[in-house]
Amino acid sequence: MEKPNRNWASKREKKAQRLEKISNLLNGKYVETEKIVEVMEKLIAPGDKVVLEGDNQKQASFLSESLEKVDAEKVNDLHLIMSSISRPEHLNIFEKGIASKIDFSYAGAQSLRVAQMIEDGTMKLGDIHTYLELYGRLFIDLIPNVVLVAADKADKDGNLYTGFNTEETPTIIEAAAFKDGIVIVQVNEVVDSLPRIDIPSDWVDVVVKADQPYQLEALFTRDPQNITELQILMAMMAIKGIYAEHGVQSLNHGIGFNTAAIELLLSTYGESLGLKGKIAKNWVLNPHPTMIPAIESGWVESIHSFGGEVGMEKYIAARPDVFFVGKDGTMRSNRTLSQAAGQYAIDMFIGSTLQLDYEGNSSTVTKGRLSGFGGAPNMGHNPGGRRHSTPAWQSLRDNDDPLGKGQKLVVQMVETYGSNKKPVFVEELDALAVQKQAGLANAPVMIYSEDTTHIVTEEGIAYLYKAKTKEERQAAIAAIGGVTPLGMTSTKESLDRLRAAGIVKLPEDLGIKRSEAKRSLLAAQTIDDLIEWSDGLYEPPMKFRTWS
Amino acid sequence: MEKPNRNWASKREKKAQRLEKISNLLNGKYVETEKIVEVMEKLIAPGDKVVLEGDNQKQASFLSESLEKVDAEKVNDLHLIMSSISRPEHLNIFEKGIASKIDFSYAGAQSLRVAQMIEDGTMKLGDIHTYLELYGRLFIDLIPNVVLVAADKADKDGNLYTGFNTEETPTIIEAAAFKDGIVIVQVNEVVDSLPRIDIPSDWVDVVVKADQPYQLEALFTRDPQNITELQILMAMMAIKGIYAEHGVQSLNHGIGFNTAAIELLLSTYGESLGLKGKIAKNWVLNPHPTMIPAIESGWVESIHSFGGEVGMEKYIAARPDVFFVGKDGTMRSNRTLSQAAGQYAIDMFIGSTLQLDYEGNSSTVTKGRLSGFGGAPNMGHNPGGRRHSTPAWQSLRDNDDPLGKGQKLVVQMVETYGSNKKPVFVEELDALAVQKQAGLANAPVMIYSEDTTHIVTEEGIAYLYKAKTKEERQAAIAAIGGVTPLGMTSTKESLDRLRAAGIVKLPEDLGIKRSEAKRSLLAAQTIDDLIEWSDGLYEPPMKFRTWS
Repeated sequence: MEKPNRNWASKREKKAQRLEKISNLLNGKYVETEKIVEVMEKLIAPGDKVVLEGDNQKQASFLSESLEKVDAEKVNDLHLIMSSISRPEHLNIFEKGIASKIDFSYAGAQSLRVAQMIEDGTMKLGDIHTYLELYGRLFIDLIPNVVLVAADKADKDGNLYTGFNTEETPTIIEAAAFKDGIVIVQVNEVVDSLPRIDIPSDWVDVVVKADQPYQLEALFTRDPQNITELQILMAMMAIKGIYAEHGVQSLNHGIGFNTAAIELLLSTYGESLGLKGKIAKNWVLNPHPTMIPAIESGWVESIHSFGGEVGMEKYIAARPDVFFVGKDGTMRSNRTLSQAAGQYAIDMFIGSTLQLDYEGNSSTVTKGRLSGFGGAPNMGHNPGGRRHSTPAWQSLRDNDDPLGKGQKLVVQMVETYGSNKKPVFVEELDALAVQKQAGLANAPVMIYSEDTTHIVTEEGIAYLYKAKTKEERQAAIAAIGGVTPLGMTSTKESLDRLRAAGIVKLPEDLGIKRSEAKRSLLAAQTIDDLIEWSDGLYEPPMKFRTWS
Repeated sequence: MEKPNRNWASKREKKAQRLEKISNLLNGKYVETEKIVEVMEKLIAPGDKVVLEGDNQKQASFLSESLEKVDAEKVNDLHLIMSSISRPEHLNIFEKGIASKIDFSYAGAQSLRVAQMIEDGTMKLGDIHTYLELYGRLFIDLIPNVVLVAADKADKDGNLYTGFNTEETPTIIEAAAFKDGIVIVQVNEVVDSLPRIDIPSDWVDVVVKADQPYQLEALFTRDPQNITELQILMAMMAIKGIYAEHGVQSLNHGIGFNTAAIELLLSTYGESLGLKGKIAKNWVLNPHPTMIPAIESGWVESIHSFGGEVGMEKYIAARPDVFFVGKDGTMRSNRTLSQAAGQYAIDMFIGSTLQLDYEGNSSTVTKGRLSGFGGAPNMGHNPGGRRHSTPAWQSLRDNDDPLGKGQKLVVQMVETYGSNKKPVFVEELDALAVQKQAGLANAPVMIYSEDTTHIVTEEGIAYLYKAKTKEERQAAIAAIGGVTPLGMTSTKESLDRLRAAGIVKLPEDLGIKRSEAKRSLLAAQTIDDLIEWSDGLYEPPMKFRTWS
């Protein structure tokens, strides 16, 4: 055997050399707040793969602002890996040449600028991912050289407390700490003794106290005041025609007002149908404030969360039977584990989208906006690896096939005309144009037709999983398409046939009168109602408060 | 709003009450070795959901032996949740009435007894899962009351070091520690100072020093001496016809001799084809000793591991550029993260099976044996949530569909007649009979036909993903079916047509001569060769050593 002479610890040596360069700036694991730019210039090398923590909620904002300030002569051509591109400086970093390539999951508020920068070549796109997929790559082909993350508190030794918003911090750190990457953590506070340790100091290289607390967004708060009676009608249909029909016990809800309406109808409309204890017991969900009435009314057995939600801290701490709460009394969330559970262990994913094509493929990527999808592709597909069975899952089994199995319920809930006054049903998804524009290998579809089992509109429910052919599928969507161009193609004969086959149900087929869909059915009609339900434990952020 | 008066910390109070019962037995978090049965009788209540750590490799053997000794009058009707049913007492616990229900992933050596006990009602089966699916349920509808896990070392405070075999310990503990479950840990050793902290003591309730170190199996060690020339032929075909053909860069290998042969051919046959640096660079894999020559020859960029492998400790510690190794110099494995990566972030899964039906569905569940599947359903399916693209994945794209996307390569590598002298291709999987026998909702299929993209036998390769119809698929399998009943149905015309269409390739189509498939091609022909390749760092367990 011929063996080349090789250094097998080259990454470790490089890391040691870089850390040596800041030895005069280190006090234990700590560096001074005002030295962080200098520290980054010495620890990050051109071309490095760098994970910058940007979750849905929590942002390593001090570190991202500092990264924007490094000298691009010293630090450039970085390959950034981010769950969520959310802050202006995330993109300024590219304009300054500090970074050149991005792999991400979600772009939200920055989606327009992301698309433009890719088109004009300022930013080279690696690819778009669902969260769990991006985390997986951190251990395979996107192993980071440096990670920049955020925690609530650290003790003198550098042990970390992440509190309610653990989110993806442990996963990112694990990918670096055990492959000779450098772990840099910003903390809000340095304390003598932590409430609990979320991440051991062994895993951490550098800790810096941020100049101000990390940015934290209340992304999952929906003000009940903005829920319309059309959304209430759709929610009633969903509860009766899907939750009750299939006996859905474990589930995830999307972020929109449609599902917020469902949350607020469980303890009123759901209760009147005698469904308590029969549906919607085990959740994988961020702590939505609109869940409070259902929790208080005893509907909810458990909620495991990806992250926290601003204002819900005290309420969660007081409800440990429901939420995942540590001995210290505060929640532990975990996006990786919650996504794994959301993929494999729940009966249903229900959410919303901006566009659906005539076959039922959906995308939130619309013209000029490369928004990505976050967790939807992971939770909104039928997981081919699933082997256990539940009544809801099994209710979708094709019994003609001896090797058949159940299917996850994946429900899209949309109004036929979106808030932009455009039809939600389009002949061709904008995703196809964006694919060309951004040079993507494949069209950025959020949820594929083959995975979509139900669509709910204000007109009715299409039980797509029952459709035998592509044509029948399209006819079913058209039948609930209202006065959109697709909807106008539906005939009375087609509708009658689909209703007879149970493929489409209208409100009257479900015994629901449109006139019953009133805001008075909501368990809470305002944020103040939610506060009252919570016994004053829920403390909404300023922007959601009313001052009467 | 009407709110019932409810105690929202009932689980916390129950936990405190139980811990109070052992307060006289506790010294800090420690209990004495000989008191563990008494401790379990006081901490575990009838009907509890209990996770007993049984990984592939590591077994919480002291705790499982102790659980068998509890008084079934006091502790009974438990719902056990286990990745792997591996030890006799795992089943004795059911015969004694201590446990009544099981949810699991893999049964291996105990598969016959598991099937019998389910049939005779001694054991009630929840369901069979792939690992990640079972972990997901720990946060949804199988939230544990008590977990019994194993670590290498603990310090006086109860911080844990899991060393090379971290496996699933952190995930199990997280599910209990943050939902007022009780965490009981057996350790091999109590030390003043740990090499590193894998799990903070905050997450742990009770630590006990085991009477002997936990059981650890070298499950992934394959002696090169047992690799046959037929397996070498198949390995050559796979390398040329699949790895090189599709440019497979990231992958997982199953546990068998077929894939061990591939590992041992990379630096010889693969090198002669000029494939170094082009294929098989990033792995999710346990530390297979048969990977040593490929690693030493510079083929391997990275390996992330589910668990460790006995005897590989020193070798891994000396190769931190390849393996995930902490600052302390020892590997950190993590089954949850490795399975997530294995699902979403690799080009190919390649493994073996006991039966394939004529459509390509496969199962390792055979008559009377309820073995489960471990990680295969997770890594061996085309993940519907995947959105990023790689050249290998993209090479399977259906270009006729504008919304088409790539596909994961899922390869089954089988000899047409198995070691039991029976045809591997069967008209009906035994899984269907076992389904009836065990009262399963669905047949226990390991990998479904729709996910299987290639089958390799000693006759050739069937590129199933290219088949347009079910009939063509079956014809392709028949064409490489040799002299099995299925193989005998193939005609020369069919074979010619399939070869012309590129759906089937024979060795000659790949430029491979059967006579070249010699054992001398293996980079290592014995365990001793592997030791030599490793510069003496690999220290195989006794049973694999030769004494000349």
